[in-house]
Amino acid sequence: MEVGQTVERDSLAARTRDGTREGFIIPIGGAEEKIGDTRILSRFVDLCGGGDARIAIIPTASQLDDTGSKYEEVFRRIGVKSARALPFKIREDCEREDWLEELEQADGIFMTGGNQLRLSTILGGTPVARAIRDASASGVHVAGTSAGAGFMSEHMIAFGGEGLLPRAGLVSMAPGLGLTNRVVVDHHFVQRARLGRLMTALSFNPFAVGLGLAEDTAAFIGPDDVLTVVGSGSVTLVDPADIEYSNLDSRADGEPVCLVNVRVHFLVDGWSFDLNTRKASHKHVMPA
Amino acid sequence: MEVGQTVERDSLAARTRDGTREGFIIPIGGAEEKIGDTRILSRFVDLCGGGDARIAIIPTASQLDDTGSKYEEVFRRIGVKSARALPFKIREDCEREDWLEELEQADGIFMTGGNQLRLSTILGGTPVARAIRDASASGVHVAGTSAGAGFMSEHMIAFGGEGLLPRAGLVSMAPGLGLTNRVVVDHHFVQRARLGRLMTALSFNPFAVGLGLAEDTAAFIGPDDVLTVVGSGSVTLVDPADIEYSNLDSRADGEPVCLVNVRVHFLVDGWSFDLNTRKASHKHVMPA
Repeated sequence: MEVGQTVERDSLAARTRDGTREGFIIPIGGAEEKIGDTRILSRFVDLCGGGDARIAIIPTASQLDDTGSKYEEVFRRIGVKSARALPFKIREDCEREDWLEELEQADGIFMTGGNQLRLSTILGGTPVARAIRDASASGVHVAGTSAGAGFMSEHMIAFGGEGLLPRAGLVSMAPGLGLTNRVVVDHHFVQRARLGRLMTALSFNPFAVGLGLAEDTAAFIGPDDVLTVVGSGSVTLVDPADIEYSNLDSRADGEPVCLVNVRVHFLVDGWSFDLNTRKASHKHVMPA
Repeated sequence: MEVGQTVERDSLAARTRDGTREGFIIPIGGAEEKIGDTRILSRFVDLCGGGDARIAIIPTASQLDDTGSKYEEVFRRIGVKSARALPFKIREDCEREDWLEELEQADGIFMTGGNQLRLSTILGGTPVARAIRDASASGVHVAGTSAGAGFMSEHMIAFGGEGLLPRAGLVSMAPGLGLTNRVVVDHHFVQRARLGRLMTALSFNPFAVGLGLAEDTAAFIGPDDVLTVVGSGSVTLVDPADIEYSNLDSRADGEPVCLVNVRVHFLVDGWSFDLNTRKASHKHVMPA
């Protein structure tokens, strides 16, 4: 597969919201390129329909007042005519009819970075969370960077420590947005040495696949349950399906956890992974 | 397997140098406990025959003059009557008949930490290196901590950078002592986040198994090619046998390397791994 070809194919066959198929779920590891090689954001925009797409930006994770307007500018620079920030700051904001309407009309939804606990505590259980889930289910593409990525899954990493090895007490989980329960996402993965906390998170119940996203790197998870890596770094994909033994249940806080038989893939731009067959491949063409 | 039982069994059936079987090869991740819970050094001493064993200490990796005498004291404190440092400092020292004789009469050989390039550049190709290999082949147990551990294998990590992910140019390999070619050893593994460099080292030619040794943690590799973990931390065991794809050959320095299908085990005290069958187990009893 030539990556260039795929981008072109995505562009040509840009999706419209037809309600017949789920949208892409696109966690990004943080610090994605916003000027220059904007391949992640451009691919997202292409999927959503290109310059005519309506992009709704949710800056709730951030405590900075200008995060939303900065992303409006980023999307405008890469050709989006209508990119609008919806700054839900408190739970009461999540009832605002005008913003909910804007959200419901979006072709793509983008959640910024910050703190994923702001996303879960402010949006959780509100019409906004429901609207994003409904949109995703009906074909709207949802991207999130950093905390925005961490929040997307049913099971999110609330917080945790750094380090290479799984250790009891290294990570705290919480319910996330629930766009999928197939993956557990961690971000700034390389830069903050988060393998240990992702392994620990997976070891609680090894049914999900772990996605350790480096900065400027995204997993485009398609409606066919195949994810494709886009960006300048790697996705560390942890597949715990074959784990033969874990002693997490009997370790005291801080003690190293024993895990036997974890499968790991280090995937770079252009590589794909099928969440059903659990196979990596370089031949997958993202569905348009 | 009860770990306590195994220690006892080792003690009871302590090995003598009979020339019929290889000795244990015992890489230690560095910073092993020297007072208090000295389970790694005590297990080594037990294997060698207990208090009556003759232990030869090779402090060549260290640039400090008192490293050898400090380890003499450590071994004396845990009951060894005859522990002697052989401070080979320059290649000429490696011809000294009296030290070579001492080395040849040892029941156990211990290499201290420091810089593994001092070990390879000073001992490599000398009668000392040959004497250690011959001793190991005839049943003498050889342990090494930190740099001493890194030097033991046929293929050693000469130096490299920190970080989670495999990257081109992250590691430089060099020929090591050659006690085994089945493993590539890295030490201070957790404390210095060395997964990336170990993965990179293995990806050159994925025939060996990677041992990422945490501090105060050792792999006791028996003559049956089964290793047993002893210590307070973990051994991150990287098995690249099933790697389906690597693009190391085509990456520029610093670029992330794509590796598909790496198997990883996080093993703690009492766990074993069979280097032939590539299976982890908690039931292995170390051969005495």
